[in-house]
Amino acid sequence: MPHSPTLDIVGIGNAIVDVIAHAEEDFLITHGISKGTMTLIEEDRAHLLYGAMGPAVEYSGGSVANSMAGAAALGARTAYIGKVRDDQLGGIFGHDIRSAGVGFNCLPANGGSTTARCFILVTPDAHRTMCTYLGACRQLGPDDVDTTLVASAKVTYLEGYLWDDPGAKAAFRVAMDAARAAGRKVSLTLSDPFCVDRHRADFLRMVEEDVDILFANEDEIISLYQTEDFDEALDRVRHHCEIAALTRSEKGSVVVSGDEAHSVDAEPVDRVVDTTGAGDLYAAGFLWAYTQGGDLRACARAGGIAAAEIISQVGARSDADLAALVTSRLAVNPTV
Amino acid sequence: MPHSPTLDIVGIGNAIVDVIAHAEEDFLITHGISKGTMTLIEEDRAHLLYGAMGPAVEYSGGSVANSMAGAAALGARTAYIGKVRDDQLGGIFGHDIRSAGVGFNCLPANGGSTTARCFILVTPDAHRTMCTYLGACRQLGPDDVDTTLVASAKVTYLEGYLWDDPGAKAAFRVAMDAARAAGRKVSLTLSDPFCVDRHRADFLRMVEEDVDILFANEDEIISLYQTEDFDEALDRVRHHCEIAALTRSEKGSVVVSGDEAHSVDAEPVDRVVDTTGAGDLYAAGFLWAYTQGGDLRACARAGGIAAAEIISQVGARSDADLAALVTSRLAVNPTV
Repeated sequence: MPHSPTLDIVGIGNAIVDVIAHAEEDFLITHGISKGTMTLIEEDRAHLLYGAMGPAVEYSGGSVANSMAGAAALGARTAYIGKVRDDQLGGIFGHDIRSAGVGFNCLPANGGSTTARCFILVTPDAHRTMCTYLGACRQLGPDDVDTTLVASAKVTYLEGYLWDDPGAKAAFRVAMDAARAAGRKVSLTLSDPFCVDRHRADFLRMVEEDVDILFANEDEIISLYQTEDFDEALDRVRHHCEIAALTRSEKGSVVVSGDEAHSVDAEPVDRVVDTTGAGDLYAAGFLWAYTQGGDLRACARAGGIAAAEIISQVGARSDADLAALVTSRLAVNPTV
Repeated sequence: MPHSPTLDIVGIGNAIVDVIAHAEEDFLITHGISKGTMTLIEEDRAHLLYGAMGPAVEYSGGSVANSMAGAAALGARTAYIGKVRDDQLGGIFGHDIRSAGVGFNCLPANGGSTTARCFILVTPDAHRTMCTYLGACRQLGPDDVDTTLVASAKVTYLEGYLWDDPGAKAAFRVAMDAARAAGRKVSLTLSDPFCVDRHRADFLRMVEEDVDILFANEDEIISLYQTEDFDEALDRVRHHCEIAALTRSEKGSVVVSGDEAHSVDAEPVDRVVDTTGAGDLYAAGFLWAYTQGGDLRACARAGGIAAAEIISQVGARSDADLAALVTSRLAVNPTV
């Protein structure tokens, strides 16, 4: 019989430093970048793009890493597995995630490609478009997964992006198997509609067989089921995994679990500054509430509040006192 | 006879990447850091401090570099001289200053200490306290000063911080001499009251003999003249250099030039978020207006508007359209 969990969430993902700059729509067109998506780029193109873009600010990022930092800020006991190099950016990534209160003991690579960077171009409408140079993330492998750590967490949270590299995919499988063997929950974010497109068959099988809690936005869930209709996608996913939390930007989110369904409005936002991290922080709030025993509506609301906060600032790691914010808003209106 | 200037401002300073984190007052006390000042730290202490501080965001910084980026945003033709290493942080610094429209051709060091970092701790009152690891800045020397470049600029802008290292001090002198030989203006910022304390005799002599435009805040000018009284310091400085621009935080600034004196109110600010860069952007606005032929009151107002903008955001490089902001505010109320 497994021990009772000592961690709430362990997250596994691509460990990335974000390089955030403002850009006009024309810049995306000139460089052939598809707005609102994440494109993988090689080193040459990374240099070219960086040379062409405006002044930037560096934040630690990575989708699952952002979620773990957010969940830790809310009070969840979290750990993170992801690969950086032993370079300056790797040192920055390690410092930021540890100082956010997330356990991080994955050894950095001491050779090969440099720490991953994601160039995030924020257009005047506050939308973000990402170009990722995976670098050292490609060195993540099954040996990096501490299965004892995974077995000790209520939820293992994985990102679809890991599927883009064979080693990371193998690490993903090892973690998922270890979580299931220990009777823990497996959670997946579909990451990006193009990522879903690249790995649809595998993702469909996982959603049906292995995933307990699925996170996806409208574009991603529509891509998964190759339908034009959100409601149809919703109908299909609700019987495939225990819980599916589907985010719909300003329309809020829908959470389904078998015959149960909850539609939750988006939290009000004074001014949307940068949508980077909206999905990551939704998952952070949701999984925090879930591991604290919250019902599905409370999970969705906590996710929505955390997401609303992160899009009111630049970057995907919150400056604000997320715990105070989420707790007070949930308390004021717990039934909405 | 020298050619007419092809640049407005060339700035020389310590090329630094800022590592900005929130910190409680207690953190400063625990680590024996004097609030509101800049302390130089060695590598060991840099590691210790970084290990203890919270999650951070990295911005390119450096006092004079911030001023040059701000002046370029306003439309001034600028160049910058400062030393980074050929490492990741050095690459980030170079990218940011060049993409801000500032000429930057100073060769990076290919050995020795890493690119300089300034740990900026922002307390809940929005004040900033700085601990700087100079690293590669200590490799700046007279050979890095392109005297033709200096001679081509209307103003050469130097920071007092350069005086903390013998090589940088020698570079400072070469630049100052080249500017004077070409009949250009020499401008100095006193940088920090403790920096003034370290080099008072030299700074006093320079202010009397070599500096045309001096920037200082209250603490710095009081430290220079070792008086408790701002008005006394003002009286002394007004006959020492052609122009002295003295900033007084929420009390605005006073600009004196011989018998001429202008007191300009601070620009209104909705919310002070982080005072990092206030002095740097004041100098940016002032020198931009000065090199465009503005009178002293317009210079002070442009400085105040740029400073007000930078303290409304995190970091010392502005996201905003500074040119539009300064131009519109100057136009609305040109006589105030």
